[in-house]
Amino acid sequence: MATTQTSQGILADSQSDTREHIIELLTKAYWMEVETVMSYIANSINPDGVRAQEIIESLETDIQEELGHARQYGERIKELYGVVPGSLDFQAEQSYLQPPDDQVDIVHVIKGVIEAETGAIDYYNQIIEFCEGKDPVTQDMVTAILHDEEGHRRLFEGFLREYQSEGLA
Amino acid sequence: MATTQTSQGILADSQSDTREHIIELLTKAYWMEVETVMSYIANSINPDGVRAQEIIESLETDIQEELGHARQYGERIKELYGVVPGSLDFQAEQSYLQPPDDQVDIVHVIKGVIEAETGAIDYYNQIIEFCEGKDPVTQDMVTAILHDEEGHRRLFEGFLREYQSEGLA
Amino acid sequence: MATTQTSQGILADSQSDTREHIIELLTKAYWMEVETVMSYIANSINPDGVRAQEIIESLETDIQEELGHARQYGERIKELYGVVPGSLDFQAEQSYLQPPDDQVDIVHVIKGVIEAETGAIDYYNQIIEFCEGKDPVTQDMVTAILHDEEGHRRLFEGFLREYQSEGLA
Amino acid sequence: MATTQTSQGILADSQSDTREHIIELLTKAYWMEVETVMSYIANSINPDGVRAQEIIESLETDIQEELGHARQYGERIKELYGVVPGSLDFQAEQSYLQPPDDQVDIVHVIKGVIEAETGAIDYYNQIIEFCEGKDPVTQDMVTAILHDEEGHRRLFEGFLREYQSEGLA
Amino acid sequence: MATTQTSQGILADSQSDTREHIIELLTKAYWMEVETVMSYIANSINPDGVRAQEIIESLETDIQEELGHARQYGERIKELYGVVPGSLDFQAEQSYLQPPDDQVDIVHVIKGVIEAETGAIDYYNQIIEFCEGKDPVTQDMVTAILHDEEGHRRLFEGFLREYQSEGLA
Amino acid sequence: MATTQTSQGILADSQSDTREHIIELLTKAYWMEVETVMSYIANSINPDGVRAQEIIESLETDIQEELGHARQYGERIKELYGVVPGSLDFQAEQSYLQPPDDQVDIVHVIKGVIEAETGAIDYYNQIIEFCEGKDPVTQDMVTAILHDEEGHRRLFEGFLREYQSEGLA
Amino acid sequence: MATTQTSQGILADSQSDTREHIIELLTKAYWMEVETVMSYIANSINPDGVRAQEIIESLETDIQEELGHARQYGERIKELYGVVPGSLDFQAEQSYLQPPDDQVDIVHVIKGVIEAETGAIDYYNQIIEFCEGKDPVTQDMVTAILHDEEGHRRLFEGFLREYQSEGLA
Amino acid sequence: MATTQTSQGILADSQSDTREHIIELLTKAYWMEVETVMSYIANSINPDGVRAQEIIESLETDIQEELGHARQYGERIKELYGVVPGSLDFQAEQSYLQPPDDQVDIVHVIKGVIEAETGAIDYYNQIIEFCEGKDPVTQDMVTAILHDEEGHRRLFEGFLREYQSEGLA
Amino acid sequence: MATTQTSQGILADSQSDTREHIIELLTKAYWMEVETVMSYIANSINPDGVRAQEIIESLETDIQEELGHARQYGERIKELYGVVPGSLDFQAEQSYLQPPDDQVDIVHVIKGVIEAETGAIDYYNQIIEFCEGKDPVTQDMVTAILHDEEGHRRLFEGFLREYQSEGLA
Amino acid sequence: MATTQTSQGILADSQSDTREHIIELLTKAYWMEVETVMSYIANSINPDGVRAQEIIESLETDIQEELGHARQYGERIKELYGVVPGSLDFQAEQSYLQPPDDQVDIVHVIKGVIEAETGAIDYYNQIIEFCEGKDPVTQDMVTAILHDEEGHRRLFEGFLREYQSEGLA
Amino acid sequence: MATTQTSQGILADSQSDTREHIIELLTKAYWMEVETVMSYIANSINPDGVRAQEIIESLETDIQEELGHARQYGERIKELYGVVPGSLDFQAEQSYLQPPDDQVDIVHVIKGVIEAETGAIDYYNQIIEFCEGKDPVTQDMVTAILHDEEGHRRLFEGFLREYQSEGLA
Amino acid sequence: MATTQTSQGILADSQSDTREHIIELLTKAYWMEVETVMSYIANSINPDGVRAQEIIESLETDIQEELGHARQYGERIKELYGVVPGSLDFQAEQSYLQPPDDQVDIVHVIKGVIEAETGAIDYYNQIIEFCEGKDPVTQDMVTAILHDEEGHRRLFEGFLREYQSEGLA
Repeated sequence: MATTQTSQGILADSQSDTREHIIELLTKAYWMEVETVMSYIANSINPDGVRAQEIIESLETDIQEELGHARQYGERIKELYGVVPGSLDFQAEQSYLQPPDDQVDIVHVIKGVIEAETGAIDYYNQIIEFCEGKDPVTQDMVTAILHDEEGHRRLFEGFLREYQSEGLA
Repeated sequence: MATTQTSQGILADSQSDTREHIIELLTKAYWMEVETVMSYIANSINPDGVRAQEIIESLETDIQEELGHARQYGERIKELYGVVPGSLDFQAEQSYLQPPDDQVDIVHVIKGVIEAETGAIDYYNQIIEFCEGKDPVTQDMVTAILHDEEGHRRLFEGFLREYQSEGLA
Repeated sequence: MATTQTSQGILADSQSDTREHIIELLTKAYWMEVETVMSYIANSINPDGVRAQEIIESLETDIQEELGHARQYGERIKELYGVVPGSLDFQAEQSYLQPPDDQVDIVHVIKGVIEAETGAIDYYNQIIEFCEGKDPVTQDMVTAILHDEEGHRRLFEGFLREYQSEGLA
Repeated sequence: MATTQTSQGILADSQSDTREHIIELLTKAYWMEVETVMSYIANSINPDGVRAQEIIESLETDIQEELGHARQYGERIKELYGVVPGSLDFQAEQSYLQPPDDQVDIVHVIKGVIEAETGAIDYYNQIIEFCEGKDPVTQDMVTAILHDEEGHRRLFEGFLREYQSEGLA
Repeated sequence: MATTQTSQGILADSQSDTREHIIELLTKAYWMEVETVMSYIANSINPDGVRAQEIIESLETDIQEELGHARQYGERIKELYGVVPGSLDFQAEQSYLQPPDDQVDIVHVIKGVIEAETGAIDYYNQIIEFCEGKDPVTQDMVTAILHDEEGHRRLFEGFLREYQSEGLA
Repeated sequence: MATTQTSQGILADSQSDTREHIIELLTKAYWMEVETVMSYIANSINPDGVRAQEIIESLETDIQEELGHARQYGERIKELYGVVPGSLDFQAEQSYLQPPDDQVDIVHVIKGVIEAETGAIDYYNQIIEFCEGKDPVTQDMVTAILHDEEGHRRLFEGFLREYQSEGLA
Repeated sequence: MATTQTSQGILADSQSDTREHIIELLTKAYWMEVETVMSYIANSINPDGVRAQEIIESLETDIQEELGHARQYGERIKELYGVVPGSLDFQAEQSYLQPPDDQVDIVHVIKGVIEAETGAIDYYNQIIEFCEGKDPVTQDMVTAILHDEEGHRRLFEGFLREYQSEGLA
Repeated sequence: MATTQTSQGILADSQSDTREHIIELLTKAYWMEVETVMSYIANSINPDGVRAQEIIESLETDIQEELGHARQYGERIKELYGVVPGSLDFQAEQSYLQPPDDQVDIVHVIKGVIEAETGAIDYYNQIIEFCEGKDPVTQDMVTAILHDEEGHRRLFEGFLREYQSEGLA
Repeated sequence: MATTQTSQGILADSQSDTREHIIELLTKAYWMEVETVMSYIANSINPDGVRAQEIIESLETDIQEELGHARQYGERIKELYGVVPGSLDFQAEQSYLQPPDDQVDIVHVIKGVIEAETGAIDYYNQIIEFCEGKDPVTQDMVTAILHDEEGHRRLFEGFLREYQSEGLA
Repeated sequence: MATTQTSQGILADSQSDTREHIIELLTKAYWMEVETVMSYIANSINPDGVRAQEIIESLETDIQEELGHARQYGERIKELYGVVPGSLDFQAEQSYLQPPDDQVDIVHVIKGVIEAETGAIDYYNQIIEFCEGKDPVTQDMVTAILHDEEGHRRLFEGFLREYQSEGLA
Repeated sequence: MATTQTSQGILADSQSDTREHIIELLTKAYWMEVETVMSYIANSINPDGVRAQEIIESLETDIQEELGHARQYGERIKELYGVVPGSLDFQAEQSYLQPPDDQVDIVHVIKGVIEAETGAIDYYNQIIEFCEGKDPVTQDMVTAILHDEEGHRRLFEGFLREYQSEGLA
Repeated sequence: MATTQTSQGILADSQSDTREHIIELLTKAYWMEVETVMSYIANSINPDGVRAQEIIESLETDIQEELGHARQYGERIKELYGVVPGSLDFQAEQSYLQPPDDQVDIVHVIKGVIEAETGAIDYYNQIIEFCEGKDPVTQDMVTAILHDEEGHRRLFEGFLREYQSEGLA
């Protein structure tokens, strides 16, 4: 559509198939982040207890971070001539992050977060691998997001270990 | 569950049925705001064009505002002894806010926003009416949110009028 | 004019007469605030004297506050499908807030402010009463403005009392 | 005393009895907030322990909030032509918020806070009810304060539940 | 009146006639700015449409700027031993800045702003000329204000040209 | 109680009697500051008049300062292994800072503040003297607070002198 | 020249030829950014019209961003032991970004920006490719800059599409 | 001394005599501002009384302003190839701004400030006149400073009038 | 082109020839500032050495300042109905500010800056003289810029003197 | 070495032996703080668990505080004509603050911090005692640092007590 | 004069002689700081050269610091019932800080600053000694100021050493 | 230990050996940064002289930057399931950054910094190379740190060149 076409890099005409594939990968990543926002809102309000406060504060900070990731994915989709999907396309998948029966059951939340982050880490590694030598901009962007997710999972693994060492998980 | 019960107001034991009903109303309102966040992210990235920028900026500001509304609804649910629902309960309803076929079709977005705000305004008026004399705290909170939505709809109606006067809508 | 009509609340079609009446009330309130801005600019520059400084500072702060009130009234008029009037419609009424003959006559200014605030308080109480059960958003907005005016009048009544106790008023 | 009397609303001459009664209600509310400030200072310094930190931080934030409430009550008393009482009128009543024998006994503090908030919620609901149709400004102000207290009690009920689920309370 | 008289410059006794004339010039300029504030409030709320947003934002910024000009004129009047006039002296003159019949008629607003700025530019040039060699402080102050108005008119002339090139004005 | 005991300074085991005495001194100082907070809230709301504004602003600033002093005393009590007392231990003593009969009687307030500061200065000098060579940390802290109180008393003595020179005190 | 030579990476002695080549690439990139700054200053002042404002604001923000890019290129040249060239070496090349004959011809500006960004994107992709496995620091830096340029071009392509859909381009 | 001489304006070789004269004028102005700083420090600490606070606050703000003026004069001296004089050259002249016998004698301070400002206004008018057509930069700078001094004198004249109207001056 | 013509001052129809001449003067000034930006970027990156840091910091600050000057010139050109030129019109002239052969040759840079500032000072004095009585707004703006340049040259002359006194220049 | 010697206080020639001794004391204190920084970095990253977060946050804040203490000690050494030692002089001594075998063993960290703070408190008390009547500046500085350390130890003693009361320490 | 006398500490009636003596000491210290402000203004404008910039920046920062010291001394004089002296009492004494014949003679300035600081350090040590056991508040205040002066002298001694090691001083 | 294992990327089970090796590399890098912090503290306090100030300021900024690097290394170790080592493991290696005999010997410091940065650059290049295709997150993080170190070394090489050109190094 543009009047002047780039001849180099991922935006070149010759790269349209690769671009299509990256858009697909980014679209799924986009939905993962959006669902995480939803899950973290609920899980930053529902839990009861003193120790829950630490997790609530952690998730509250993450809501903005994950929203930012979603936005980055959406904007990259746009830059690659794709379209960010509407709410009708949304499919919930984080069954492990639904509210527990008992709101003091923090271990349920911790395990859910680890599960969600693990899925994201695996998936983002695939995107990084695919982009190698094809789209360094997307690769860099996803690498930075991957770092956030790795750090976040590590933190919640630590939370889990405490409960395990107390025999509560 | 609490050791000391209030005897006055919406948190009194005797008000548990009313409380249940308000929680239901708030839960639906919560989902409306969450879906709006989703729709506004997509619609603040997808559109093309100079005039679209004005709408994009307006929606970007609204994303944080609507996220704040969702959070207020969620926290009020919690205060009334309810539970904020998880992502599996989400049902998309804003068919009118899906990405248009052509990304320069701004009128589609404007009409979608008006539709969404109209639905919210009607629904929030019902909540306000129901709370009258029963729960002044919820009533006040929803009235303030209603004001935001009314102002927002008025703005987009103005946008629409311009396109209409140019014969574009 | 809008494509989608609300069926609930003050913006519903069926409420157009009530809306018209509220717009009239708000228009008069709008002009009261605009004239107050004008009067406070003059009265925050003209007076001489050490004690006048306290009143000048108080009025300088109020200029922005009253301008904000005017803006709120104007925006509410717009939201209710009215039109904010132009300068030709302005009719000065605050005869009691004109510059005194002698610029050290602070009592003149104090009494003028009390007179102006009293008029506003009476009038805003009427708006609040009229909106009861009809337009909770306007009612809330005017109640907040009323609080400002009540606090402001109380302050100037205190100023007056000091001069009275010194036999100067 | 004022030179110009309002004829509408709570400040009208005809409303002096109602005004007297509201001043009484507000005076008691004022003392409740002042005592809460005192109790929260002590309870935000005394407790020992990691989990106590969360409660200490929560109470430290609340000190400023409750001081603000006390100030709002005091200023409203003044606006209604009353007088804020001096320290000789103070009567301590929060026996449940005195320092426990053992400074790691956090449950004692949590229960004390819930007790204090419950008392405030009940009392403020009465003020709101009394002001209905009589003084919308006071009503609005107390409703906003009530919201703070409800949220705060809900938080400490959650703290208590955690200790209960661990068999410590 | 002052105990110590300056013997040099515009504040010297011998300059009282010149001072009187400058006060007259500044008083008219003061009213021009005050009316502009009024007109810009209305015109920053009334218009509908996407393109109107740009003009609304521009006028919103100008309201504070023009209010600042009014204040500068008022304070200079005071410094030259004059008195800032009260609201009863106000005469509306900006017939070209009244709200149009149709709120999407932006060209009406643009032309009105150009008209208002043109009047101010002409008038301020006269003040600058008169002050030459008589009152460098007033001259400097008005030159700075003149610069603001010239820039502002140029901006709206640009707006008008766009509509003209599209055959809409 | 601690696993590792310091052998030097005020926290050493051998100093427990001195520590007990300092805690007693600090506890009384703590209550003096708390009562001052209470007195200053009332006296920063009640007075009427232009000149009262200067005193009100001064006291409003002091409320936060005195609250800070109370907090410092409380935290030092904690550091020395004492317990901050609860509200039931409070005994009002500032009879001279109760609201006057007439709210324009500013001299009453000024004298009350001087009285309160004088008591604090005398008492804090005793604490400083006692701590010499025993607890340099407490000594430093109280010296800094003493400086605040001396400056504050001097200011209000100046206020009093003005009224005396006008024959009003 | 340095006393201590690195033996690893792009700064190693053995890499001086590669280094020379990268300096050449960076020098051209440096000039591209400098010319863009010049072009954007002119194009952020010249255009007339409401819609032009959006483009003006966009370019104003970009001036600082592009200046930052130029600075980054210059500093990297320095780090690689090169010299940033002086103004005599400058050769204008952006014939497509010269001021149009008619200042309301925004399409001319938009196409010029797309042309400039396309050239930058192609060229920066070449630098990234050349640096692969040779100089990760330069590669990272250019990748980040590339991302900015891609996003910027996409935005202006969207602007162009609007004009195309209106038959104006 | 400079390698490259300007041939235009006040810095041209041919203007060295004029430059010398301007440096003399600026040096005296420099000392006037420095002495004012000294006088205002003393007079912002010494006075007693509630009304004195207003004057103290006014002078405290002015200390920084007058120090800024001194600095501007000093820097302009430097720019014109002069040397800012050392403390041994200082000659006190403001006999009217020495501390009064009685620290509640505010009228003494007010009259002293008016005297000081009057001297400055007269002197700065002479500098402005001398610079006409010779040194526009100095002229502009002094005009701006003159405006500050005129406004300041006007304020203190107003203070004096209040005391005069009360028969105290 | 504008619908409403000013009849007074530089924007009046009768002044079009004068306006053309001022635009020419401003256009040359515009290019001088743009080239200075270019030269200062290079000279704030290239130099080596501890003493060079002081010069680098000074130039870095100046880049923004000179860019601001360029912008002011450009905007004034626009206000006078001229067009800011494109990059193809640029002619490099600052041969004295090209990078020296040796990057520790700071004296080269210092002399270059003095040369550049001297040229600007001479030229701006001419503009000021031409505008006298014709265009006070341009005159004021250029006078303020002239002040910046004079101060800047004076600083670098001081730098040069140090090197001269050490026999290095 | 200095040209002008002080004859009074710790910097006097006659005090060189005392100065040497204080430098020795400060050097050891400097190393204690540096090692604490090292230990707190490790202990603010390694621990796992929800409760660990409170300790991690506390230590993260302390890193900057302790670094500030180290800096203060270093700068005081310099002021007393000593030399801050290099890294080769560092001897690790905090065996009790090494990472535990199990990263959820928080009690290990808490005890280590108490041990470190106890050592610092004892040592700083000695410095304060030695400086009495010899070097008030050092004495004041160390007293302020001592206060920080006492407060910090008290906090961690409270943490320990909680674990003890739960039978975990 | 005060209605209520302190019986403890330096403000007690019995301490009036000591108080008189401290006021004398503080008055001399006050003048030392004021003259330093004067000297530093001149010496932060006059010097030429790159290395001079470091000293200029250092002195510019010190002007505000020394002005703050002067203010602290003045306010303490006031608190002890003394009067801050007027400008007629000023006696210049810093012959060593007058402008040198040649403005690149930085060594002259450095030696002057060391001389000034040495005098202050000696004198402030005497005040501290005199206050021991008599006025801890003044003692603390002067100790803090002494620390500033010691650090400042040490910095300039370092500057001098560099010039000495280069054989320039 | 984690309940859910990633199967992709460096955190996958199959990558534990690679992970171990990266942790070793990061641990050494961690200690290099920690020692640099120590060396820079000493070298930002010890040096004397005007030119030393530039280096001191540069090192002061770097302390926070290098501390940040150490923290990044430590946190990455944690994320890869390693443990940040304690102070007993520290081995000083920067013999070239110990304090020189003479504190005006800046060349000693400059050469030490270059040596330290050279070591870091070589080592970080190795880490980057090792991570290629194995751990993009670590690779990105180290590349960013490498950029900082390269820029820093280049700056100090420039410092050295100045001294060399003056024959001082």
